[in-house]
Amino acid sequence: MSLRPVLIDGEWRPSAASGSFSAIDPATGTPLPDHYPVSSFADLDQALHAAARLVDQHPSLDPERLAGFLEAFAGRLEACRQEAVAMAQRETALPAEPRLGSVELPRTTDQLRQAAAACRDRSWCRATIDCARNLRSMYGSLGGPVVIFSPNNFPFAFNSIAGGDFAAAIAAGNPVIAKANPGHPGTTRILAEAAFAALVESGLPLSLIQLVYHFADDDGLRLAAHPMTAAVAFTGSRTSGLALKAAADRAGKPVYVEMSSSNPVVVLPGALEERAEALARDLFASCTAGAGQFCTKPGLVLLIRDERSDRFLAAVRELFLQPPTGMLLGEETLRRLEETVRRLRTAGGELATGGERLSGPGFRFANTLLQVTGERFMQVPDALQTEAFGSLTLLVLCHDPGELEAAVRALEGSLTGTICSHSAGTDDALYRTIEPVLRRKVGRLLNDKMPTGVAVCPAMNHGGPFPATGHPGFTAVGVPGSLLRLAALWCYDNVRPDRLPAELGDANPTGAMWRLVDGEYTTRSL
Amino acid sequence: MSLRPVLIDGEWRPSAASGSFSAIDPATGTPLPDHYPVSSFADLDQALHAAARLVDQHPSLDPERLAGFLEAFAGRLEACRQEAVAMAQRETALPAEPRLGSVELPRTTDQLRQAAAACRDRSWCRATIDCARNLRSMYGSLGGPVVIFSPNNFPFAFNSIAGGDFAAAIAAGNPVIAKANPGHPGTTRILAEAAFAALVESGLPLSLIQLVYHFADDDGLRLAAHPMTAAVAFTGSRTSGLALKAAADRAGKPVYVEMSSSNPVVVLPGALEERAEALARDLFASCTAGAGQFCTKPGLVLLIRDERSDRFLAAVRELFLQPPTGMLLGEETLRRLEETVRRLRTAGGELATGGERLSGPGFRFANTLLQVTGERFMQVPDALQTEAFGSLTLLVLCHDPGELEAAVRALEGSLTGTICSHSAGTDDALYRTIEPVLRRKVGRLLNDKMPTGVAVCPAMNHGGPFPATGHPGFTAVGVPGSLLRLAALWCYDNVRPDRLPAELGDANPTGAMWRLVDGEYTTRSL
Repeated sequence: MSLRPVLIDGEWRPSAASGSFSAIDPATGTPLPDHYPVSSFADLDQALHAAARLVDQHPSLDPERLAGFLEAFAGRLEACRQEAVAMAQRETALPAEPRLGSVELPRTTDQLRQAAAACRDRSWCRATIDCARNLRSMYGSLGGPVVIFSPNNFPFAFNSIAGGDFAAAIAAGNPVIAKANPGHPGTTRILAEAAFAALVESGLPLSLIQLVYHFADDDGLRLAAHPMTAAVAFTGSRTSGLALKAAADRAGKPVYVEMSSSNPVVVLPGALEERAEALARDLFASCTAGAGQFCTKPGLVLLIRDERSDRFLAAVRELFLQPPTGMLLGEETLRRLEETVRRLRTAGGELATGGERLSGPGFRFANTLLQVTGERFMQVPDALQTEAFGSLTLLVLCHDPGELEAAVRALEGSLTGTICSHSAGTDDALYRTIEPVLRRKVGRLLNDKMPTGVAVCPAMNHGGPFPATGHPGFTAVGVPGSLLRLAALWCYDNVRPDRLPAELGDANPTGAMWRLVDGEYTTRSL
Repeated sequence: MSLRPVLIDGEWRPSAASGSFSAIDPATGTPLPDHYPVSSFADLDQALHAAARLVDQHPSLDPERLAGFLEAFAGRLEACRQEAVAMAQRETALPAEPRLGSVELPRTTDQLRQAAAACRDRSWCRATIDCARNLRSMYGSLGGPVVIFSPNNFPFAFNSIAGGDFAAAIAAGNPVIAKANPGHPGTTRILAEAAFAALVESGLPLSLIQLVYHFADDDGLRLAAHPMTAAVAFTGSRTSGLALKAAADRAGKPVYVEMSSSNPVVVLPGALEERAEALARDLFASCTAGAGQFCTKPGLVLLIRDERSDRFLAAVRELFLQPPTGMLLGEETLRRLEETVRRLRTAGGELATGGERLSGPGFRFANTLLQVTGERFMQVPDALQTEAFGSLTLLVLCHDPGELEAAVRALEGSLTGTICSHSAGTDDALYRTIEPVLRRKVGRLLNDKMPTGVAVCPAMNHGGPFPATGHPGFTAVGVPGSLLRLAALWCYDNVRPDRLPAELGDANPTGAMWRLVDGEYTTRSL
């Protein structure tokens, strides 16, 4: 059995493996042919040292080269589109079209190109100059590797070697140590091969990107807390995220964890009256996109139970009765969904439809709808906000507006929160009561639009209050926000002109970079 | 014995005290007459609930009123200058003039006014608008109280009820729960009375600012981790800072700790040749300002031992032989300094002068100079970077440029790092070797200038890599940076125009607020 090599210190080399694994085809439940190493800490130690040498030998990397690399990588991804999509489809059972090939891959290359543009433009680093004091500051690289852990649900867009965290870390000038998600090692390998080929051409140091496929949990914690690690970015389950966060926090490392989120959707009475069927369809689409395996999937729907809601509830139930069109990413996802249903039912959730795995082939779970009264929800809000990764949603049926507000008050932090209301304003009084409470529980507040679908643009916030993430001030998606997560604030006090980074010199290095000079945003040179 | 009241829920009221304390006059070592309560958790619980009610009833506070409050408070501080300075002088033994009255108080009122201006201007919230997608984001308040712990060494400028964290928290729209530093409760009371009087006039809710004087360590940890707490800001010792950080981290709270920092000063050979005496005087002044009790005091001086350094070393030693002009803030500071000297000597530091407490009255410690070889420094770098709060500095004498670079490499994170070099560029080659290594260890890099003295301006970074602080991307001093520490990223997706905060509306709410609209910084309306 030959194991695929890992990418360490500028070369594909055999892993110092402590074991091996293969991806499982979710459509059949059988292992795929390739074998990948489970790295021992020896691999990680070598990667850390290689990254440290890189930082020593190249304390600052040329933004033009970084941008060139990101763009070349995007081009190579497009060139290997067919191979990458086929492999991702095999490893995740996500539809090749349109999802993987026409949605997620273009989004991924767009992200890489946006990061490249930011890197070239340099406005992201928020150069701030106080001329009289000769005090100048900017965001710069962290001085060590960013360790990236990626989730199973976006084999391209959140991949540790091609996704948002990767693009941000590189654009901000940091080396990356990527851990593949063990659900799609083959996809990750194809992306990493494209990345490495682009890197070789770029003239950048070759240990800028390194990749291992898997390691023991304890080694992950050790890596997160290692003195040579600069920061950690993680997307995945709450259990793993909290363990990593604890390890990194103790060691004083910046750590960004994007964890589970229930993404509450509040549907106000006027909206139900106006467009119950349309809302039901939108909700169903949002709950079942990607088989419900989106971090912004609505896991909670809150509404007032009255004559107006019955049509909506019936329509939702009718839609959820349909057999699922997608497969789950793995057996573990299936097992956790079963566990979630058990917990929600124990906590008082009543099953309206679904709730069980479907017979094979593949990992399939019935579209699942549960419901609970607002009163019960507030008795055990923690249990009823159990992470539900899959097409499962819990309807919280409140007695009156006061109970609805109280239920919103009992919500924990989420990435998104949605309020649907009557287009003519008949819900506005209730909106004004609910919104301020929901606002502070979420990173992104939506009106009349379901939360799945995250635009990659500067105004996006894909973040939110704990436990959705570990810090309410940062977004994982969108440039320049995502770069700032992985940057340090550098300040130069009385430093001689020829020793300043170009971004802080008197001359504007690009002629177009935005800088805050004596309180004024400007693209001019001093 | 009557205890001073605490400020909770909009009124000065008796504390639910578990004990009492008095400040100690550092000039005599005797207790001052006033008695202050040690709050039980009942006080903190009431404060938390009052802050939560405030956020519920006033989900967003008018920036004009917040700015008006901060300005009125600054005015009142000036009006009670004489009383405040006298009390601070009595409680801290810092000189009334120029330090307290003409330096620190004006800096404090300037900080409050800068925060007010930022609040009124609103550019700090970094409004970002994507017109085509109707996606709009900005930084806003955290939705709960910021708990502020202040240090003993700046009774005004870092006071939890008047200092930088306070000004930032209020300007960002958050209620504050302040804990006095038990070294100067009377000063804190005077500031809080001025603040509360300004608050009453402002029309803002009265539980916006709350104050307790002291509490048990465990209650502090409980407060930091409490579900109702939004964030924690701390300035002080590493031991206390790490304990608070651990508690807040576990609970998923943003926590900012500004802890000890050795602020290394690297003096290159050319600088020694050019201006040894002047450098010695500058270093001595920086080490002994405020009796060495500044967070930016140089605690380490690194240089190459050769014929050029001897003149410098002799001049430094000569200066350090002078008796200290200032007193230490408390007996604990004295005790810790003795402990530091013991530790540094055990680790191989040789005492060049000082090293012991001086006989009374007051808490006085000899100006202290230690030295160690670069070789030894690298054997036990941790022990030789022991926190030294007071006029104590360790000279690291390196054998050659390579050893100097290696010693810099062994430094831990600091707020500042300084390199002094020959004005004509003869040190430039060595500078280019040292700078990239030092750069990533510090928040603010200085040339030819000692690090004490922190300008309050947008380009300042008073922050740095762990363990100087808990996150390398934030500054505690300077607007707008300090506000962003205490803000959450709010995003509005498809939200109807009449429901957006003014900052995100089509019209620029002030006509002058900077916003990033479709990638362009502008003050125009859409």
